[in-house]
Amino acid sequence: MTEWFEQLRWNEQGLVPAVTQDAASGRILTVAWMNQEALKQTFATMQAVYWSRSRGKLWRKGEESGHVQRVVEIRLDCDADAVLLRVKQAGGIACHTGRHSCFYLRLADRNWQTVDPVLRDPGLIYKKS
Amino acid sequence: MTEWFEQLRWNEQGLVPAVTQDAASGRILTVAWMNQEALKQTFATMQAVYWSRSRGKLWRKGEESGHVQRVVEIRLDCDADAVLLRVKQAGGIACHTGRHSCFYLRLADRNWQTVDPVLRDPGLIYKKS
Repeated sequence: MTEWFEQLRWNEQGLVPAVTQDAASGRILTVAWMNQEALKQTFATMQAVYWSRSRGKLWRKGEESGHVQRVVEIRLDCDADAVLLRVKQAGGIACHTGRHSCFYLRLADRNWQTVDPVLRDPGLIYKKS
Repeated sequence: MTEWFEQLRWNEQGLVPAVTQDAASGRILTVAWMNQEALKQTFATMQAVYWSRSRGKLWRKGEESGHVQRVVEIRLDCDADAVLLRVKQAGGIACHTGRHSCFYLRLADRNWQTVDPVLRDPGLIYKKS
């Protein structure tokens, strides 16, 4: 029998995009990537774990910032190549800029305009120890 | 000056993932892909146009089904490598299976379980002419 995590259509790098939605606000918080291990750890811990392509390692969301994402629901799309997480976002801040969502740029007048406020100074989120 | 569509970080295939959210229900409808031309046409027409990786051509969402997506808002994320569309979904059906959203599979008991109803028989949506 094929395990649930084997039923995804992982891309040539072994990844799928993972969209994360705030269960409270309904906002899309982030688009990140998962490999099979990230998805399995997300399911096992019910906290969002992604694959960081830039760092080339598992990324336990919130491990530095404290802004962890408690997973309410994990969904898969019709062609099994994208994952959706609905989460409770700790601190209400998903973005490294200190904003609720990473999608704070809105296209208007042929420009990407910042339309969402910074809720917390990133310098306070990522304190050097 | 760099044009708005040149400010994205397109991947090695010239694509970015595009997440589409229903402006009415708040549900995530689809995750698809865009190249620069798809994004420009989406902006020009304010109807969702994607890049079909399987067919290798532009995909005007709804061109066969009639289930077009009128774009309310186009957003970009903090690292400029993912697009978010908020749309009005014609017929309330985004998925080729006749469901509201493509994300109709929910992980439960280590299985992907279908949890959303078919709203219209795909055989009626995709009529052979």
